[in-house]
Amino acid sequence: MTVSAHALTEPAPAAKESPGAPKTARGARTRAQILKAAEETIGTLGYHRAGITDITRAAGVAQGTLYTYFSGKEEILRELVRDLGHQVRAHLAAETRHARDRLEAEEQGLRAFLHYLAEHPTLYRVLQEAQFVDETIYREYYEAFGKGYMRMLGNATRKGEVRPGDDEVRVWALMGLSNFLGLRFAVWGRDRPLEDVVAAAADFLRHGLALDGKEKA
Amino acid sequence: MTVSAHALTEPAPAAKESPGAPKTARGARTRAQILKAAEETIGTLGYHRAGITDITRAAGVAQGTLYTYFSGKEEILRELVRDLGHQVRAHLAAETRHARDRLEAEEQGLRAFLHYLAEHPTLYRVLQEAQFVDETIYREYYEAFGKGYMRMLGNATRKGEVRPGDDEVRVWALMGLSNFLGLRFAVWGRDRPLEDVVAAAADFLRHGLALDGKEKA
Repeated sequence: MTVSAHALTEPAPAAKESPGAPKTARGARTRAQILKAAEETIGTLGYHRAGITDITRAAGVAQGTLYTYFSGKEEILRELVRDLGHQVRAHLAAETRHARDRLEAEEQGLRAFLHYLAEHPTLYRVLQEAQFVDETIYREYYEAFGKGYMRMLGNATRKGEVRPGDDEVRVWALMGLSNFLGLRFAVWGRDRPLEDVVAAAADFLRHGLALDGKEKA
Repeated sequence: MTVSAHALTEPAPAAKESPGAPKTARGARTRAQILKAAEETIGTLGYHRAGITDITRAAGVAQGTLYTYFSGKEEILRELVRDLGHQVRAHLAAETRHARDRLEAEEQGLRAFLHYLAEHPTLYRVLQEAQFVDETIYREYYEAFGKGYMRMLGNATRKGEVRPGDDEVRVWALMGLSNFLGLRFAVWGRDRPLEDVVAAAADFLRHGLALDGKEKA
């Protein structure tokens, strides 16, 4: 529960091995079914009120089956957050695959993220719960996100698509930017068309706040 | 506990009036003492484990005194978050008062915020608790922040200090940026000098990611 003071660069605590990682396609389906049920249940009732029986009932599996895949509720939450992270990253990768350069990918990625969030508001609810139950779960989510993001930004810098800079700082700035725009415009309020938000944010992340000389004060 | 779907522009739910706002300087001191004790207690034990008696003991006041100022624990948390918001904004205003323009103020403000956070890590802990207990408390914190910030950015745009743009979107992007840089570099990991983070972030928020033509790819 405590805010960890460990440096991000220290190795993350090793994930407890699931009692049984699925060995068959059917097993993988059952495991996915349980995580989907956990997402709905935790997203609706909250982590503390959601019981194992609520999850097994929603998944349509026996309690014994659940324990074949997960040691308990905390592990379900941890795996659910990992799974959601994979889903979001896969979604953004698919939605930005035709981008001509990193700047276009940033804009398309933000658009895809805001729409994803508007359709899956449980994502933030589950992350919020995770942050509260064990902050390392929340931290791992953003560290995993940041790792791939840094690689992409580094490649783009080398290819001359973006201004050189400190990729770690820029990636965390960009993740914070998306996170708060999502919270404000996709989760809390839907009073502004998402396309306006994307356009304004894309201008900001391309050009920053400084006048570029072409404009008159 | 639920993520509210209310638009941000809707009026925030009216704050329950404290049973007794302090009428004297001594009363104001006692109230501040209770909030300070609540910050320590909630920051250490967490909201749910922190009892009213823990707070009164830490504040050195009788339980009856606490109820003169607050209706209960949730109201203490709400007032504490408001109070912390005032403190942070006052601190940032003081630290940026000599800035020559908005861009300089942004850089100085980020520096001041990261240092403040490094010295007051309970700020995020309390906000995280608030987000969980009642998300409107968390939301009000950022709405209040955003309101003043939008005014400053609007003035700066009119004075020709910053590139024109959508101030609401830019303000939420900037708050997200500071929030995540604070989380990563002041709360979770202290592996990078804060000055490097400030310099890199200031470059990003001044110039964005796009090459400005002066640089070679």
